[in-house]
Amino acid sequence: MSLDAQILGALRAASGGVSGAELAAQFRVTRAAVWSRIQELRILGYGIEASPHLGYRLVASPDVLHADDLKLRLGRTRVVGREIRVFQETTSTNDVMEKIARDGVAEGIVVFAEKQTRGRGRLGRRWHSPRGLGLYGSVLFRPEVPPMSVTRLTIAAAVSMARAIELVTGLRPEIKWPNDLLLGGRKVAGILTEMNAEMDRVRYAIVGLGVDVNHTSEDFPPELRQLATSLRVEGRRLVSRGDLALALLRELDRDYARAMSNRFEELADEWEARCTTIGQQVAIQMGARQLRGRAESLDTDGALLLRTEHGHLERVVGGDVTLEK
Amino acid sequence: MSLDAQILGALRAASGGVSGAELAAQFRVTRAAVWSRIQELRILGYGIEASPHLGYRLVASPDVLHADDLKLRLGRTRVVGREIRVFQETTSTNDVMEKIARDGVAEGIVVFAEKQTRGRGRLGRRWHSPRGLGLYGSVLFRPEVPPMSVTRLTIAAAVSMARAIELVTGLRPEIKWPNDLLLGGRKVAGILTEMNAEMDRVRYAIVGLGVDVNHTSEDFPPELRQLATSLRVEGRRLVSRGDLALALLRELDRDYARAMSNRFEELADEWEARCTTIGQQVAIQMGARQLRGRAESLDTDGALLLRTEHGHLERVVGGDVTLEK
Repeated sequence: MSLDAQILGALRAASGGVSGAELAAQFRVTRAAVWSRIQELRILGYGIEASPHLGYRLVASPDVLHADDLKLRLGRTRVVGREIRVFQETTSTNDVMEKIARDGVAEGIVVFAEKQTRGRGRLGRRWHSPRGLGLYGSVLFRPEVPPMSVTRLTIAAAVSMARAIELVTGLRPEIKWPNDLLLGGRKVAGILTEMNAEMDRVRYAIVGLGVDVNHTSEDFPPELRQLATSLRVEGRRLVSRGDLALALLRELDRDYARAMSNRFEELADEWEARCTTIGQQVAIQMGARQLRGRAESLDTDGALLLRTEHGHLERVVGGDVTLEK
Repeated sequence: MSLDAQILGALRAASGGVSGAELAAQFRVTRAAVWSRIQELRILGYGIEASPHLGYRLVASPDVLHADDLKLRLGRTRVVGREIRVFQETTSTNDVMEKIARDGVAEGIVVFAEKQTRGRGRLGRRWHSPRGLGLYGSVLFRPEVPPMSVTRLTIAAAVSMARAIELVTGLRPEIKWPNDLLLGGRKVAGILTEMNAEMDRVRYAIVGLGVDVNHTSEDFPPELRQLATSLRVEGRRLVSRGDLALALLRELDRDYARAMSNRFEELADEWEARCTTIGQQVAIQMGARQLRGRAESLDTDGALLLRTEHGHLERVVGGDVTLEK
């Protein structure tokens, strides 16, 4: 735990101000060391007022992801967020997590990046990840379930993401199966679950999360402007990505336990309630194959059950969905 | 293609002998270069006779795996064996293949090792891999099927392995679901299929193959002596691992095409015919859960269909099988 994060924690906890002397005593460092860290934090964008009577007060936090600070604020969780790492820039947090997974690191570790140069979406597509505007991260799981049941993780992540967005912004995203979150019909967040498995045993599953948080319309490349939106555009105010990250990790930690137990059905029910695909006539493109029918419900593993034109119930795991009139 | 492999190829192709002059002309090198390579090959264990009238004749090949030589002998295949690499020693060919897969290498590449220090079996178990006694290898596939259908690869590999063993040794192994080959009730070969996938798209699948070829009983660690056997022990003669490797790759190349098409059913039929689990009362341990019933057949993806005591048909993808009386 860095001194920076400890100082931030103390400033947040204090209702009034905290003197330099108190901070030095609390963390067993010199007042000069405290002053030096305060300068650094100010350079990072933290608004820290200093008054002779009140001491230091935190009046503004920049929208940065600070691993130690997030860990301190997150506090104790069951699994998710046991360890948090933040990269200023990386190819893709899912790629970073693959290496971490192969090194045998325990589940629950989270990786965020301020910018991705090769952010990934489903089916090999690109996830546009400009610096500091979105929340780009991955969570490592080692679920003791057969590969087929890993769909539950995607369901859990979608529900957690929707709840976190609602908690932090008041906006209520709709879920579009299999893993998109929409606001006003445009995509605001997505999930990419990748797993490494034997036929009957999952070695690890990586849940990749991408949220368009503070983009303005101009921040999207032209080809995405009609298809994507951000929390800032929809809510008409800036959103703290740190606050969103914390809400997301807390919800996901709670939902992971439920997803892996016989309580998955509760999650599935909530997912269905938030999912506007259910009840619609849809066409699902899976590679060269197309399936059409009415999206009825989720099955026990989170796959979509589609009632085809012939009356059959088809189980679908992934694909591109378009609504039909 | 190394000069060594080209010379071996020419010696194998010749019904009688080949002179040093002919070899030099064919490969556009000096006779001294040819003589030098012949010495090297003899040091490697190749028996090459030299007579003034007949020239060089190949009379014996050592039991080594020589990548170029295998490639030359294999000839043209559809997919499997497009590239062959041989390691003298490695942790596990499946591990090596994971890196190769992530580097984006095309499917069909094969990796063998003369020795593995951390050979893997299913469920994290160790595959005992002493130098030069077994065939330890992995094949990379990028099948355009959903993750559920990757079981077909394991079925294809098991059938290919059984046929290759029969072709080279005359022995007829039985298949024990999901991926063991047995002779005289003891395990002689195994398959480990590992995949990396999104929920609806397989990025790659690695089929790991292990065959106990030339072990004597003493070559097995004590705890395996009652459970494992080798082709040498069962057939009472040494087997060329190179010959076995070639047979295996040819059969697998043919079966891969069938496995990924609507001809998978033929493969499944052959598998069922060779599989002694079918028709038996079995208990299948899958982690903490146990299923009991009669092994009825394979489904369209190669999963086992088990008729439980309650009369239900359960679909099982993996697990440890024991026969019940």
